[in-house]
This record gives sequence, structure tokens and C-alpha cells, in this order.
Amino acid sequence: VKLAALAEKIGARLIGDGALEVARVRDVGRAGPGDVAFVGAARERRAARDARATALLVDEDFAADWAHELPCAVLAAPHAADALVLAVEALHPPAPAPAGVDARAAVHENARVLHDAYVGPFAVVEDGAVVGAGARVNAHAYVGAHAALGQGVVVGVGAVVMSGVHVGAHTIIGPHAVVGDEGFVFAPRGKKNARLRHIGEVSIGSDVDIGAGVCIDRGALGVTRVDDGARIDNLVQVGHDVHIGADAIVIAQVGLAGHARIGAGAVLAGQSGVQEHTHVGAHARVGGKAGVTRDVPAHAAVSGMPAVPHAQWLRAMALLPHLRELERRVRALEAQREDSPQENR
Amino acid sequence: VKLAALAEKIGARLIGDGALEVARVRDVGRAGPGDVAFVGAARERRAARDARATALLVDEDFAADWAHELPCAVLAAPHAADALVLAVEALHPPAPAPAGVDARAAVHENARVLHDAYVGPFAVVEDGAVVGAGARVNAHAYVGAHAALGQGVVVGVGAVVMSGVHVGAHTIIGPHAVVGDEGFVFAPRGKKNARLRHIGEVSIGSDVDIGAGVCIDRGALGVTRVDDGARIDNLVQVGHDVHIGADAIVIAQVGLAGHARIGAGAVLAGQSGVQEHTHVGAHARVGGKAGVTRDVPAHAAVSGMPAVPHAQWLRAMALLPHLRELERRVRALEAQREDSPQENR
Amino acid sequence: VKLAALAEKIGARLIGDGALEVARVRDVGRAGPGDVAFVGAARERRAARDARATALLVDEDFAADWAHELPCAVLAAPHAADALVLAVEALHPPAPAPAGVDARAAVHENARVLHDAYVGPFAVVEDGAVVGAGARVNAHAYVGAHAALGQGVVVGVGAVVMSGVHVGAHTIIGPHAVVGDEGFVFAPRGKKNARLRHIGEVSIGSDVDIGAGVCIDRGALGVTRVDDGARIDNLVQVGHDVHIGADAIVIAQVGLAGHARIGAGAVLAGQSGVQEHTHVGAHARVGGKAGVTRDVPAHAAVSGMPAVPHAQWLRAMALLPHLRELERRVRALEAQREDSPQENR
Repeated sequence: VKLAALAEKIGARLIGDGALEVARVRDVGRAGPGDVAFVGAARERRAARDARATALLVDEDFAADWAHELPCAVLAAPHAADALVLAVEALHPPAPAPAGVDARAAVHENARVLHDAYVGPFAVVEDGAVVGAGARVNAHAYVGAHAALGQGVVVGVGAVVMSGVHVGAHTIIGPHAVVGDEGFVFAPRGKKNARLRHIGEVSIGSDVDIGAGVCIDRGALGVTRVDDGARIDNLVQVGHDVHIGADAIVIAQVGLAGHARIGAGAVLAGQSGVQEHTHVGAHARVGGKAGVTRDVPAHAAVSGMPAVPHAQWLRAMALLPHLRELERRVRALEAQREDSPQENR
Repeated sequence: VKLAALAEKIGARLIGDGALEVARVRDVGRAGPGDVAFVGAARERRAARDARATALLVDEDFAADWAHELPCAVLAAPHAADALVLAVEALHPPAPAPAGVDARAAVHENARVLHDAYVGPFAVVEDGAVVGAGARVNAHAYVGAHAALGQGVVVGVGAVVMSGVHVGAHTIIGPHAVVGDEGFVFAPRGKKNARLRHIGEVSIGSDVDIGAGVCIDRGALGVTRVDDGARIDNLVQVGHDVHIGADAIVIAQVGLAGHARIGAGAVLAGQSGVQEHTHVGAHARVGGKAGVTRDVPAHAAVSGMPAVPHAQWLRAMALLPHLRELERRVRALEAQREDSPQENR
Repeated sequence: VKLAALAEKIGARLIGDGALEVARVRDVGRAGPGDVAFVGAARERRAARDARATALLVDEDFAADWAHELPCAVLAAPHAADALVLAVEALHPPAPAPAGVDARAAVHENARVLHDAYVGPFAVVEDGAVVGAGARVNAHAYVGAHAALGQGVVVGVGAVVMSGVHVGAHTIIGPHAVVGDEGFVFAPRGKKNARLRHIGEVSIGSDVDIGAGVCIDRGALGVTRVDDGARIDNLVQVGHDVHIGADAIVIAQVGLAGHARIGAGAVLAGQSGVQEHTHVGAHARVGGKAGVTRDVPAHAAVSGMPAVPHAQWLRAMALLPHLRELERRVRALEAQREDSPQENR
């Protein structure tokens, strides 16, 4: 692809020779002739001046200051990260999606596989399930009875969608994710920890991302919901009757206990957790490894276990390593006090 | 089902018209005519007064105080959570379990599948394995050589039971759980981190629950044990030679290092961890995200990393956000001391 | 096997009757006549005096002090843990590895399965993939298009190796591990959290161990690398473009965010985490549950969240339970100051 054409496609301003050919996108460190290299994080900006790429894709503000020092053509975009998505689409079109039902799949006679959908080898689609148009049920995936997959849904290799689960259009479920298993509710008295059969549901919105190895339990009596556009990273635990709001971001290994509610656009950093029946407000931010034990207001930022306002946590953590020193200072004051005449009253 | 009949079945006292018909159980928020709604947590009690359900299932003590204000019939049980288990059984009988070996399963000629057992499509049962009477080996599940599954055991979709693992009657293994893989023991000297082939075993008791994505490693030389009635939530890691006592509750994403011992009836909250060779006593409680680095006495409650008695941790955490203020107060005392005449001695 | 022969094979000094026969290795607690019991941890040393084994395998230094008090023959090795690896190999040879492609596997016509390799039932090997000589692709495993498995690689039951992933010789991938799925990078502006198709790669070295349920994401534009000899325990999350150095040890449930770098020989204890673009130096040690938010120098030891030098953390944690007491002491000083005459100036 000629740089001029690419620039137009991705909405970038070209500084350099539009007749140059580029064939792929790469990270700055590995890019060479014929490559477009993306320059995002600060560390990559430092590497940009030594780039051997044919062109660098950068933010406009970086280009404004540094384009003249860069060793190659420059594609300057208002938001380089957005332009990158388009550049990858342009230069790395995905392999044509397979379609049809593999002869080695087990599709129940009462299941419906709509047009252009794919069901891979050893996949199982049970009684009454619907696989939407253009959807992909990859090898070893399992779609339970009466589950419904919307248009263009992708069920990753070995992913499990249990009975009755609804999945909205263009949602991606990662390899080995498990959606709709029983939750962890037991009757605590009488018989020890008696099992409660979970009769609730799971409803996944459209354009959701669910990572590899994620577990999303069905409601005990109600519904576990993930709203449109939410992004869930690998190995996240989503308990029964949880509600994750639209466009929320839940990073790897987070745990959400039963009935937790995550507001729209909230961000939960890696390995954080939310206690049962607890609410994280819209657009709130929960820090890495934080443990949310009380409701978090919308737009707030919290950290620590138990989670407190982020700024407060930062101050406490800055002092924590000096706690011993603080104790010594108190001891010194005490010693002095004991020496001092005022003690003699 | 008529309310009067249901009340009798679940051992509840009926306040209202026993001739009313109910067909299903639902959460308070979604329940409508024909539904029984369960009222458990405090938040649900508040919602109960606006319920549109035909009947509410509540605890006796709540009924005593509030039944007259509730807008529908009331089923009052000594322990509503126990009655709920029975109500779900009565109104939502599970689909009849499939039986027989699916034609697409791979069952070794020397494996034994007992009467009324089920082996699903693409499941694998290896040489010498035994699938107990009425047990279910669901689609894509794997039962290794000489593994033994007791009566009524359920092996979830894609779950892996490695060679030689014993599983007691009526235990449920969740989708994609892995039971009996090698543990993480290496010989540290000479050759770098040389692998030790794990020749130990795994013994799972009866009526155990193992969640989705759980990993339970086999013993290095000994036995990894999970005793009767234990409840293990999703994505828990159980290291080699660990012992989990009867009826213990291990919540999601907990990690138990090699040779950890968890006493009977202990409760480990989500994302907590126990160091290797460390003992959590019977009926002890480990808080969310806690890290147990020393033995915990029976019936104790601990929290924090490293874990300390829960009450002590609570007090420390209450002060932590005020650490900076404390430092300021010490500084003020120091400043004053320096200004004071006693310094001139 | 006669003890004298075993001693020679494993490089141990025999104290006792070399004509005694032993048939297996067991832990001290369960060992009986005919068994060799391994004595490693301090707790096992205490149990050694009551052992009913035919022989005890111990460290030379322990043997020097205690051999005369032990109730059976003794195999004393410079490093008993290394000798144990050899003893297990001698007495517990693995079952002969299966070979050949199972009739129920789905191997693409353009895939290459080299001599002595095994492909199990319901395994899938896609177009252009290579399965090295003597490698094992176990039941339900998935090897994506153009993935390359080196000689003797083991892909566990249900493990997923996505397209284009390279795996070096003799590496072991645990059951249900997922290697090469998309990472968690989105374009944050314009369209909400737009997906970026990950075109990067994954390169796994030789003699690597990857545990059950581990997720290793492919690079966004670059390469996710795990170098030779690294040991990764169960349920670990390895983000896009991460680099794990040679012989590093990553214990269960650790999370490594995008572009994290782990130096050679570093040890990350269970449930710890490393922030994106952060570097843990060679041979550094990260404590259990620690959260690394800044680069860690080589050979350093850090703990806590955020991680600080381990010794500093230990001191702070020792004082933390006494924080309330400290606050009381400060209050006492303040009260006294207010009472004192110096306040009257």
C-alpha cells in the first residue's frame, strides 16, 4: 500500500513521500523497511528517533514537536491509537472466516445455525440453541441447550456457553471461558452447605469482550448481566447476579462477588476485587489489587484493601515504609518527656 | 402448585390464601404473579414491600415483624435459605439426566461405565477408569487412566480428571477444572530447576463442589486431599499435597501453596492465599485478599497481608488513612519540643 | 531394586544394608517396608525418626548429625532434592509414551506431524502447523495454523496453542493453558474501547514449564517471549508483549501486565503482580501478593503493594498491628503538652 493511500484511509496527515510502499505494522523495536511502526508509550517515543521503519504512526502533538527529527516518513493522527486500529485493518486483513458446520461437530437436530455461521471440529451445539448469522463456534467450544448467540458472535476454542445464556451481537468469548455455570450460593444451616440449584440467567450484551479463562456464573434466582461494550480481561471471576455496566473495563484476575454492581465506564485494575452486594459507581476507578468493601461513588478513584480514596491511599503508602522511623520519633519524644522537669509535677 | 402444598413441602408456615397457584421461584425484583420471591439479604427486605410476587419466602423473624405490611402471601420458614433449596427443587425439577455413552465419546475398552452413567460427546475415558453408577462425564471432559469416579459424580464440560484420581460420590467438578496435574516442585540445585515427576495422588471426598477453572495438583510424593462436603469456588489454585478439611469453604481465586492444610469448616474468602506448609485451623476464617504466612488457630479470624487477627487488622486499617495526619502531629510535637525551654538544659 | 544399586544411580552414600530391596518412593508419613522416603522440609525431619520406610533419602548434613538415630537405612546425598529426581526416575519410570495420530484427531492435511509424535483423540492440528519429533498433543488439545512445536513438546489435555505460536523443544504446556490469544489493548478514544486486532507473536523457549489454566497473550504488534527454562505455575496471566527471562520462576496466580519484563532467574511468589511496562531485574525476588509498580533492581527483594524493599516492608508490617497503640502514645504526648507549663508562654 502506498503511504499516501494509507494516510487517507486512517485519517492521518502524511509528512514525507506518499509514493513509498508499506506492507505491515510492527512495533518500533522490530520495524524495518516496508513497515509502519506505531509510537505510543513514552518509552517508544525515545526509540522513535532510531527507527528503521519506512513510516512512523504518531500522535499529532508529538509530530508537531518532533517530526523534523524523525528518520523517516511520519503519519500524524489526532489519536494515533485509533489510527493504528485502522492501519492494522488495512494492512493485516484477517484471514477469510471459515463458514459451515464441520463434519466432526455435534450439532443437535433442533439447534439452529444461521447463514454464514461456522461450527468447528468437535464443537457441541445442544438442543434448541441458536448460532447467529456469521457467528463462529470454534473447535471444542460448547453451546448449551437453548443458548442464543447473536450475529457475528465468536465463541473461542474450548469456550463453554451453558444452557439458556444470551449473547449479544459481535461479542467475543475467549478460549476456555465459562459462561453460565452455577454460582457459589449454599444454604448454610440445617444440612451443611446444601447446594442451591441456580435457576437464574446470564445476559451478555453486544460488542462485549470476554477474555480467556474467564468464569461468569449464572444468577442464583436473578440475572447476571454484562452490558454492551464491556471489556473483560483473562481469568476474571464474575459471581452470580453481578451486573457489569456498559463499556466497563475489568482487567485480568479481578474477582466480583455475588450481586456486585459495576457502573458504566468503570475501570477495575488487575487483581482487584469487589465484595458481594457492593456497588462501584459509573466511571469510577479501582486500583490494582484493591479490595472494594463499601460502595464507591461515581467517578471516584479508590485503592488499597479495604479500598479508600486513591489520594488518601497514596499518602498512607508513602509513609508506610517510614513507620518504624515514626515510632522511633515518638519514642524519642516520650524519653525526653520523661527526662523533662514537667514530669516532676 | 398450590401454596398450601408448597408450604408443607418446604416446611414453611403459610400466611395467606393456600389455594393460590405458583409456578416458579424468582428474585424479588423480577417476580410477578405466579412467582414465589425469596427475601434474603437486607436489601431484598426493603424491596419486599413493593413485591409483585404471589408469595414471599422469608425468615420467621422477619415475618413476625413485617408480614402484616407485605403485599402478598407469605411463606415463613425457620431458615428461609434452606426452604429456598426445597422450593427450587419442587418448582424447578432438573431436566431428566441423560444416560448412556454418546457415540462420539472415546471410552477405552478397559474402562468401566456403570449403570445409568452418562458419557457425553467427545468425552474421553481412558484405560482402567471407572465411571460410577449415575455419574455424568459431560461433553469434552477427560477422565484419565485408572481414575475412579464415585456414584453420581458430575464431571463438567471440558473438566480434566487426570490418571489415578479418586472422586467420592456425588461430587461435582466444574467446567474446565483440572484435577491431578503435576505440582510445582523442582529440584533447585545442580541442573537448574530440574523437574520432579509427581508420583503422588489426589483424593477427593464425597459431596464436594469444585468450581469452574479450579486447578488441584497431585501430590509430589504424597496425597492432595479434599474432604467430604468441601466447597471450592471458581479459579482456585490447590497446590500439591494440600489438605482441605470437611465442609471447608474456599471462595474464588484463593491460592493454597504446597502442603497447606485447611481445617474442617474453615472459610477462606476470595483472593486470599495460604503459604506452603501452613495450617489454617478448623472453623477459622481468613479474610478477603488475606495472606496467611503463619499457622492460624482453630476458630480464629485473620485478615491482611501478612494475616493478623481480624480485629487488630481492622483497627490498623482504620488508622492507615490517617497516617499522614499522625506524622504531622508527631512533627508538631517535635517542633514544640525544640521551641520549649526544656531543650535548653 | 537393591539399595546399593539405587545409591549408585542417584549419587548417594548408603548407610545400611545394600542388599535391601526397595520398589517405590513415598512421603515419610505414608512410607512403609519396600519404600524409600524423602526427607526434605524441617517438618519431615522430625517425622524421620518414626519412619517405617526401608530407607530414608536425606541431605548429607542431616545424615552427618542424625543418621545414627534413624530407624532404617539412609541414602545421604549432597543435595537430596536432586537425588530424589533421580530416584523417582529409577523406581517410577513413566508409562511408555503413546505415538501416532489417533483416528479421532483432526489433523489438517497441510500440517506436519513428525516421527514418534502423538496426537490424541479429538485434538485439532490446523493448517501448516508442525508437531515436532516425539512431541505429544494430548486429547482435546488445539494447535493453531502455522504454530510450531519443537521436539518432545507436551501440549496438555485441552491446552490451546493459537496460530503462529512457536514452542521450543521439551517445553511442557499444562492442561487448559491458552497460549497466543489476543491481548487486552483497545483504542481508548473516538469509538469506545475499539478493538485492536493483535498481529504480534508468541515465542516460548525450550524446556519451559507452563502450568494448567495459564493464559499467555500474543504481542499487540511485538512479541510475547518466555525464555528457556522458565517455570510458570497454574492460573498465571501473562499479558501482551511481556518478556519472561530464562529460568525465571512465576508462582501460581501471578499477573503480568502488558510489556512487563521479568529478568532471568527472578522469582515471583504467588498472587503477585507486575504493572505494565515495568521491569523486574534478574534474580530479583517479588514477595507473595506484592504489586510491582516501579522497576525492581537485579537481585533485589521486594514485598507489599506498592512493592518496596522486603526488609522495609517487614519492619512496616511488624508495626502495623500496633498503629493504634502508636496513635495513643501520640495522643498521650499531646495531652501532656497541653497540661504542661510550656504551653502558657
